[in-house]
Amino acid sequence: MPIIRVEMFEGRTSEQKNNMTKELTDAFVRTCGSTPDQVQVMITEFSPKHWGSGGKLASEKAKS
Amino acid sequence: MPIIRVEMFEGRTSEQKNNMTKELTDAFVRTCGSTPDQVQVMITEFSPKHWGSGGKLASEKAKS
Amino acid sequence: MPIIRVEMFEGRTSEQKNNMTKELTDAFVRTCGSTPDQVQVMITEFSPKHWGSGGKLASEKAKS
Amino acid sequence: MPIIRVEMFEGRTSEQKNNMTKELTDAFVRTCGSTPDQVQVMITEFSPKHWGSGGKLASEKAKS
Amino acid sequence: MPIIRVEMFEGRTSEQKNNMTKELTDAFVRTCGSTPDQVQVMITEFSPKHWGSGGKLASEKAKS
Amino acid sequence: MPIIRVEMFEGRTSEQKNNMTKELTDAFVRTCGSTPDQVQVMITEFSPKHWGSGGKLASEKAKS
Repeated sequence: MPIIRVEMFEGRTSEQKNNMTKELTDAFVRTCGSTPDQVQVMITEFSPKHWGSGGKLASEKAKS
Repeated sequence: MPIIRVEMFEGRTSEQKNNMTKELTDAFVRTCGSTPDQVQVMITEFSPKHWGSGGKLASEKAKS
Repeated sequence: MPIIRVEMFEGRTSEQKNNMTKELTDAFVRTCGSTPDQVQVMITEFSPKHWGSGGKLASEKAKS
Repeated sequence: MPIIRVEMFEGRTSEQKNNMTKELTDAFVRTCGSTPDQVQVMITEFSPKHWGSGGKLASEKAKS
Repeated sequence: MPIIRVEMFEGRTSEQKNNMTKELTDAFVRTCGSTPDQVQVMITEFSPKHWGSGGKLASEKAKS
Repeated sequence: MPIIRVEMFEGRTSEQKNNMTKELTDAFVRTCGSTPDQVQVMITEFSPKHWGSGGKLASEKAKS
Protein backbone atom coordinates (compact mmCIF):
# COMPACT_ATOMS: atom_id res chain seq x y z
CA MET A 1 0.00 0.00 0.00
CA PRO A 2 2.73 2.52 -0.80
CA ILE A 3 1.59 6.14 -0.81
CA ILE A 4 3.17 8.84 -2.95
CA ARG A 5 2.22 12.37 -1.98
CA VAL A 6 3.00 15.29 -4.20
CA GLU A 7 2.95 18.85 -2.91
CA MET A 8 3.36 21.55 -5.53
CA PHE A 9 2.16 24.97 -6.52
CA GLU A 10 -1.27 25.12 -8.13
CA GLY A 11 -1.39 25.60 -11.88
CA ARG A 12 -0.80 22.25 -13.57
CA THR A 13 -3.48 20.98 -15.96
CA SER A 14 -5.57 17.87 -15.39
CA GLU A 15 -3.63 16.19 -18.15
CA GLN A 16 -0.34 16.92 -16.42
CA LYS A 17 -1.67 15.51 -13.16
CA ASN A 18 -2.95 12.40 -14.88
CA ASN A 19 0.35 11.82 -16.62
CA MET A 20 2.26 12.48 -13.42
CA THR A 21 0.12 9.97 -11.51
CA LYS A 22 0.77 7.35 -14.16
CA GLU A 23 4.49 7.94 -14.38
CA LEU A 24 5.14 8.20 -10.64
CA THR A 25 3.29 4.92 -10.14
CA ASP A 26 5.30 3.21 -12.86
CA ALA A 27 8.56 4.61 -11.47
CA PHE A 28 7.76 3.26 -8.02
CA VAL A 29 6.82 -0.22 -9.22
CA ARG A 30 9.86 -0.40 -11.52
CA THR A 31 12.31 0.41 -8.73
CA CYS A 32 10.66 -0.90 -5.56
CA GLY A 33 8.25 -3.65 -6.58
CA SER A 34 4.60 -3.84 -5.53
CA THR A 35 1.86 -3.54 -8.18
CA PRO A 36 0.30 -0.38 -9.65
CA ASP A 37 -3.03 -1.12 -7.96
CA GLN A 38 -1.33 -1.02 -4.58
CA VAL A 39 0.22 2.41 -5.18
CA GLN A 40 -1.77 5.47 -4.21
CA VAL A 41 -0.95 8.96 -5.43
CA MET A 42 -2.25 11.98 -3.50
CA ILE A 43 -1.78 15.53 -4.77
CA THR A 44 -1.90 18.66 -2.63
CA GLU A 45 -1.69 22.02 -4.37
CA PHE A 46 -0.45 25.13 -2.59
CA SER A 47 -1.19 28.74 -3.34
CA PRO A 48 1.86 31.04 -3.59
CA LYS A 49 0.33 32.75 -0.55
CA HIS A 50 0.97 29.63 1.51
CA TRP A 51 4.43 28.42 0.51
CA GLY A 52 7.73 30.21 0.52
CA SER A 53 11.41 30.16 1.34
CA GLY A 54 14.03 32.65 2.39
CA GLY A 55 11.55 34.05 4.89
CA LYS A 56 9.15 35.16 2.14
CA LEU A 57 6.00 33.57 0.79
CA ALA A 58 6.14 33.12 -3.00
CA SER A 59 3.33 35.64 -3.40
CA GLU A 60 5.51 38.28 -1.77
CA LYS A 61 8.51 37.51 -3.93
CA ALA A 62 6.39 37.89 -7.05
CA LYS A 63 5.70 41.50 -6.08
CA SER A 64 9.31 42.52 -5.85
CA MET B 1 -2.13 15.52 22.68
CA PRO B 2 -2.83 12.64 20.27
CA ILE B 3 -3.74 13.75 16.76
CA ILE B 4 -6.02 11.77 14.47
CA ARG B 5 -5.94 12.86 10.85
CA VAL B 6 -8.50 11.64 8.38
CA GLU B 7 -7.96 11.92 4.65
CA MET B 8 -10.91 10.97 2.47
CA PHE B 9 -12.76 11.93 -0.67
CA GLU B 10 -15.00 14.97 -0.38
CA GLY B 11 -18.73 14.34 -0.15
CA ARG B 12 -19.58 13.45 3.46
CA THR B 13 -22.18 15.61 5.22
CA SER B 14 -21.43 17.79 8.24
CA GLU B 15 -23.40 15.35 10.35
CA GLN B 16 -21.23 12.45 9.20
CA LYS B 17 -18.07 14.42 9.99
CA ASN B 18 -19.38 15.36 13.43
CA ASN B 19 -20.29 11.78 14.23
CA MET B 20 -16.97 10.53 12.91
CA THR B 21 -15.07 13.03 15.08
CA LYS B 22 -17.00 11.90 18.15
CA GLU B 23 -16.58 8.20 17.49
CA LEU B 24 -12.92 8.31 16.49
CA THR B 25 -12.16 10.23 19.68
CA ASP B 26 -14.07 7.73 21.81
CA ALA B 27 -12.36 4.81 20.07
CA PHE B 28 -8.95 6.28 20.77
CA VAL B 29 -9.62 6.98 24.45
CA ARG B 30 -11.20 3.55 24.95
CA THR B 31 -8.19 1.71 23.56
CA CYS B 32 -5.22 3.97 24.29
CA GLY B 33 -6.15 6.13 27.27
CA SER B 34 -5.79 9.93 27.35
CA THR B 35 -8.93 12.09 27.64
CA PRO B 36 -11.26 13.30 24.88
CA ASP B 37 -10.14 16.91 25.40
CA GLN B 38 -6.58 15.90 24.59
CA VAL B 39 -7.52 14.25 21.30
CA GLN B 40 -7.55 16.37 18.17
CA VAL B 41 -9.24 15.30 14.95
CA MET B 42 -8.22 16.94 11.67
CA ILE B 43 -10.02 16.21 8.41
CA THR B 44 -8.60 16.72 4.92
CA GLU B 45 -10.87 16.14 1.95
CA PHE B 46 -9.52 15.27 -1.47
CA SER B 47 -11.07 15.82 -4.86
CA PRO B 48 -11.16 12.75 -7.16
CA LYS B 49 -8.87 14.86 -9.35
CA HIS B 50 -6.15 14.65 -6.71
CA TRP B 51 -6.21 11.06 -5.45
CA GLY B 52 -5.90 7.82 -7.31
CA SER B 53 -4.39 4.37 -7.52
CA GLY B 54 -3.33 1.99 -10.26
CA GLY B 55 -1.70 4.93 -12.01
CA LYS B 56 -5.03 6.72 -12.52
CA LEU B 57 -6.63 9.54 -10.60
CA ALA B 58 -10.16 8.66 -9.44
CA SER B 59 -11.59 11.33 -11.75
CA GLU B 60 -10.11 9.49 -14.73
CA LYS B 61 -11.43 6.13 -13.62
CA ALA B 62 -14.93 7.58 -13.38
CA LYS B 63 -14.82 8.39 -17.08
CA SER B 64 -14.10 4.88 -18.24
CA MET C 1 -9.31 4.52 0.32
CA PRO C 2 -9.74 6.62 3.48
CA ILE C 3 -6.57 7.03 5.52
CA ILE C 4 -6.55 7.50 9.28
CA ARG C 5 -3.24 8.67 10.69
CA VAL C 6 -2.57 8.63 14.40
CA GLU C 7 0.26 10.62 15.92
CA MET C 8 0.90 10.01 19.60
CA PHE C 9 3.65 9.65 22.16
CA GLU C 10 5.47 6.34 22.15
CA GLY C 11 4.59 3.89 24.91
CA ARG C 12 1.41 2.06 23.96
CA THR C 13 1.54 -1.75 23.78
CA SER C 14 1.04 -3.76 20.61
CA GLU C 15 -2.30 -4.87 21.97
CA GLN C 16 -3.42 -1.28 22.41
CA LYS C 17 -2.35 -0.41 18.88
CA ASN C 18 -4.16 -3.44 17.47
CA ASN C 19 -7.34 -2.59 19.34
CA MET C 20 -7.08 1.04 18.33
CA THR C 21 -6.68 0.09 14.66
CA LYS C 22 -9.77 -2.13 14.85
CA GLU C 23 -11.92 0.41 16.65
CA LEU C 24 -10.90 3.44 14.58
CA THR C 25 -11.69 1.49 11.43
CA ASP C 26 -15.09 0.44 12.75
CA ALA C 27 -15.86 3.99 13.87
CA PHE C 28 -15.05 5.34 10.43
CA VAL C 29 -17.15 2.78 8.55
CA ARG C 30 -20.07 3.21 10.97
CA THR C 31 -20.22 6.97 10.51
CA CYS C 32 -18.90 7.59 6.98
CA GLY C 33 -19.48 4.40 4.99
CA SER C 34 -16.81 2.62 2.93
CA THR C 35 -15.69 -0.88 3.96
CA PRO C 36 -13.06 -1.89 6.54
CA ASP C 37 -10.76 -3.21 3.78
CA GLN C 38 -10.68 0.23 2.22
CA VAL C 39 -9.62 1.97 5.44
CA GLN C 40 -5.93 2.28 6.18
CA VAL C 41 -4.57 3.13 9.61
CA MET C 42 -1.04 4.55 9.92
CA ILE C 43 0.59 5.16 13.31
CA THR C 44 3.47 7.52 13.98
CA GLU C 45 4.96 7.59 17.46
CA PHE C 46 6.80 10.61 18.80
CA SER C 47 9.45 10.77 21.48
CA PRO C 48 8.86 13.39 24.23
CA LYS C 49 12.06 14.95 22.86
CA HIS C 50 10.24 15.77 19.62
CA TRP C 51 6.79 17.01 20.65
CA GLY C 52 5.77 19.77 22.95
CA SER C 53 3.56 22.76 23.63
CA GLY C 54 3.83 26.02 25.50
CA GLY C 55 7.26 26.49 23.95
CA LYS C 56 8.67 23.41 25.71
CA LEU C 57 9.25 19.90 24.46
CA ALA C 58 7.58 17.30 26.69
CA SER C 59 11.00 15.97 27.70
CA GLU C 60 11.86 19.37 29.14
CA LYS C 61 8.60 19.67 31.05
CA ALA C 62 9.20 16.27 32.66
CA LYS C 63 12.38 17.65 34.23
CA SER C 64 10.71 20.54 35.99
CA MET D 1 16.30 21.98 3.26
CA PRO D 2 14.40 22.20 6.55
CA ILE D 3 10.64 22.40 6.15
CA ILE D 4 8.38 24.19 8.62
CA ARG D 5 4.69 23.39 8.21
CA VAL D 6 2.05 25.42 9.97
CA GLU D 7 -1.47 24.12 10.38
CA MET D 8 -3.97 26.60 11.80
CA PHE D 9 -7.53 27.80 11.51
CA GLU D 10 -8.29 30.02 8.55
CA GLY D 11 -8.66 33.73 9.25
CA ARG D 12 -5.21 35.28 9.47
CA THR D 13 -4.42 38.15 7.11
CA SER D 14 -1.80 38.02 4.37
CA GLU D 15 0.32 40.36 6.44
CA GLN D 16 0.20 38.02 9.41
CA LYS D 17 1.20 35.09 7.24
CA ASN D 18 4.06 37.05 5.70
CA ASN D 19 5.33 38.11 9.09
CA MET D 20 4.96 34.62 10.46
CA THR D 21 6.94 33.17 7.53
CA LYS D 22 9.72 35.67 8.13
CA GLU D 23 9.89 35.16 11.88
CA LEU D 24 9.63 31.37 11.85
CA THR D 25 12.47 31.26 9.33
CA ASP D 26 14.62 33.56 11.44
CA ALA D 27 13.83 31.54 14.59
CA PHE D 28 14.90 28.33 12.89
CA VAL D 29 18.15 29.71 11.53
CA ARG D 30 19.01 31.38 14.85
CA THR D 31 18.60 28.16 16.83
CA CYS D 32 19.46 25.38 14.38
CA GLY D 33 21.71 26.86 11.72
CA SER D 34 21.16 26.54 7.96
CA THR D 35 20.41 29.65 5.89
CA PRO D 36 17.06 31.39 5.30
CA ASP D 37 17.08 30.36 1.63
CA GLN D 38 17.20 26.72 2.65
CA VAL D 39 14.16 26.99 4.93
CA GLN D 40 10.74 26.39 3.44
CA VAL D 41 7.53 27.41 5.15
CA MET D 42 4.26 25.74 4.14
CA ILE D 43 0.91 26.88 5.52
CA THR D 44 -2.26 24.79 5.62
CA GLU D 45 -5.45 26.42 6.83
CA PHE D 46 -8.31 24.42 8.30
CA SER D 47 -11.98 25.28 8.44
CA PRO D 48 -13.63 24.94 11.87
CA LYS D 49 -15.69 22.24 10.15
CA HIS D 50 -12.58 20.12 9.76
CA TRP D 51 -10.70 20.43 13.05
CA GLY D 52 -11.78 19.80 16.59
CA SER D 53 -11.04 18.28 19.96
CA GLY D 54 -13.01 16.73 22.78
CA GLY D 55 -14.94 14.76 20.18
CA LYS D 56 -16.42 17.90 18.62
CA LEU D 57 -15.43 19.83 15.54
CA ALA D 58 -14.85 23.53 16.29
CA SER D 59 -17.86 24.45 14.16
CA GLU D 60 -20.07 22.41 16.49
CA LYS D 61 -18.63 23.96 19.62
CA ALA D 62 -19.34 27.43 18.27
CA LYS D 63 -23.03 26.58 18.16
CA SER D 64 -23.33 25.65 21.81
CA MET E 1 10.05 23.41 -4.88
CA PRO E 2 7.82 20.38 -5.47
CA ILE E 3 7.98 17.76 -2.72
CA ILE E 4 7.40 14.07 -3.32
CA ARG E 5 6.85 12.04 -0.17
CA VAL E 6 6.90 8.28 -0.23
CA GLU E 7 5.45 6.22 2.60
CA MET E 8 6.06 2.48 2.38
CA PHE E 9 6.88 -0.55 4.47
CA GLU E 10 10.48 -0.86 5.57
CA GLY E 11 12.62 -3.39 3.73
CA ARG E 12 13.83 -1.83 0.48
CA THR E 13 17.58 -1.66 -0.11
CA SER E 14 19.56 1.57 -0.37
CA GLU E 15 19.97 0.89 -4.06
CA GLN E 16 16.20 0.63 -4.52
CA LYS E 17 15.68 3.90 -2.66
CA ASN E 18 18.33 5.65 -4.72
CA ASN E 19 16.82 4.41 -7.97
CA MET E 20 13.34 5.34 -6.82
CA THR E 21 14.48 8.86 -5.93
CA LYS E 22 16.03 9.28 -9.35
CA GLU E 23 13.07 7.91 -11.28
CA LEU E 24 10.36 9.73 -9.30
CA THR E 25 12.22 12.99 -9.85
CA ASP E 26 12.54 12.35 -13.58
CA ALA E 27 8.87 11.37 -13.83
CA PHE E 28 7.82 14.59 -12.13
CA VAL E 29 9.97 16.84 -14.30
CA ARG E 30 8.92 15.02 -17.49
CA THR E 31 5.21 15.48 -16.78
CA CYS E 32 4.98 18.69 -14.75
CA GLY E 33 8.05 20.77 -15.55
CA SER E 34 10.38 22.29 -12.95
CA THR E 35 13.99 21.09 -12.75
CA PRO E 36 15.43 18.08 -10.90
CA ASP E 37 17.26 20.33 -8.43
CA GLN E 38 13.93 21.84 -7.38
CA VAL E 39 12.34 18.47 -6.63
CA GLN E 40 12.73 17.02 -3.16
CA VAL E 41 12.05 13.40 -2.33
CA MET E 42 11.34 12.40 1.27
CA ILE E 43 10.96 8.76 2.32
CA THR E 44 9.18 7.53 5.43
CA GLU E 45 9.30 3.84 6.23
CA PHE E 46 6.66 2.15 8.34
CA SER E 47 6.92 -0.99 10.42
CA PRO E 48 4.16 -3.59 9.85
CA LYS E 49 3.30 -2.87 13.49
CA HIS E 50 2.25 0.65 12.52
CA TRP E 51 0.32 0.30 9.28
CA GLY E 52 -2.67 -1.80 8.40
CA SER E 53 -6.05 -2.05 6.74
CA GLY E 54 -9.27 -3.97 7.30
CA GLY E 55 -9.00 -3.10 10.99
CA LYS E 56 -5.76 -5.07 11.40
CA LEU E 57 -2.16 -3.94 11.48
CA ALA E 58 0.00 -5.79 8.95
CA SER E 59 1.94 -7.42 11.77
CA GLU E 60 -1.29 -9.03 13.01
CA LYS E 61 -2.25 -10.27 9.58
CA ALA E 62 1.12 -11.95 9.20
CA LYS E 63 0.36 -14.10 12.24
CA SER E 64 -2.85 -15.55 10.91
CA MET F 1 -4.46 24.69 18.49
CA PRO F 2 -1.94 25.69 15.84
CA ILE F 3 0.56 22.98 14.96
CA ILE F 4 4.10 23.71 13.79
CA ARG F 5 5.86 20.74 12.26
CA VAL F 6 9.56 20.81 11.58
CA GLU F 7 11.21 18.33 9.25
CA MET F 8 14.99 18.43 9.14
CA PHE F 9 18.06 16.25 8.92
CA GLU F 10 19.05 14.48 12.12
CA GLY F 11 21.99 15.90 14.03
CA ARG F 12 20.81 18.86 16.11
CA THR F 13 21.39 18.70 19.87
CA SER F 14 18.63 18.56 22.46
CA GLU F 15 19.48 22.12 23.41
CA GLN F 16 19.01 23.29 19.83
CA LYS F 17 15.65 21.54 19.61
CA ASN F 18 14.52 23.04 22.91
CA ASN F 19 15.53 26.52 21.83
CA MET F 20 13.91 26.06 18.45
CA THR F 21 10.65 24.94 20.06
CA LYS F 22 10.65 27.99 22.29
CA GLU F 23 11.47 30.47 19.53
CA LEU F 24 9.11 29.04 16.92
CA THR F 25 6.29 29.20 19.46
CA ASP F 26 7.10 32.80 20.35
CA ALA F 27 7.35 33.76 16.67
CA PHE F 28 3.94 32.27 15.97
CA VAL F 29 2.22 33.98 18.90
CA ARG F 30 3.90 37.30 18.12
CA THR F 31 2.70 37.34 14.51
CA CYS F 32 -0.56 35.36 14.54
CA GLY F 33 -1.96 35.54 18.05
CA SER F 34 -3.09 32.54 20.11
CA THR F 35 -1.22 31.66 23.32
CA PRO F 36 1.96 29.59 23.75
CA ASP F 37 0.02 26.80 25.48
CA GLN F 38 -2.12 26.39 22.39
CA VAL F 39 0.84 25.99 20.05
CA GLN F 40 2.23 22.52 19.48
CA VAL F 41 5.62 21.86 17.94
CA MET F 42 6.34 18.46 16.38
CA ILE F 43 9.80 17.53 15.10
CA THR F 44 10.56 14.81 12.56
CA GLU F 45 14.18 14.04 11.79
CA PHE F 46 15.26 12.49 8.52
CA SER F 47 18.31 10.42 7.75
CA PRO F 48 20.35 11.52 4.69
CA LYS F 49 19.35 8.11 3.32
CA HIS F 50 15.73 9.25 3.18
CA TRP F 51 15.80 12.81 1.89
CA GLY F 52 17.28 14.25 -1.24
CA SER F 53 16.93 16.53 -4.24
CA GLY F 54 18.15 16.62 -7.80
CA GLY F 55 17.25 12.94 -8.08
CA LYS F 56 19.80 11.92 -5.43
CA LEU F 57 19.38 11.13 -1.76
CA ALA F 58 21.71 13.23 0.42
CA SER F 59 23.60 10.09 1.43
CA GLU F 60 24.52 9.51 -2.20
CA LYS F 61 25.65 13.08 -2.75
CA ALA F 62 27.96 12.83 0.24
CA LYS F 63 29.83 10.00 -1.49
CA SER F 64 30.65 11.95 -4.61
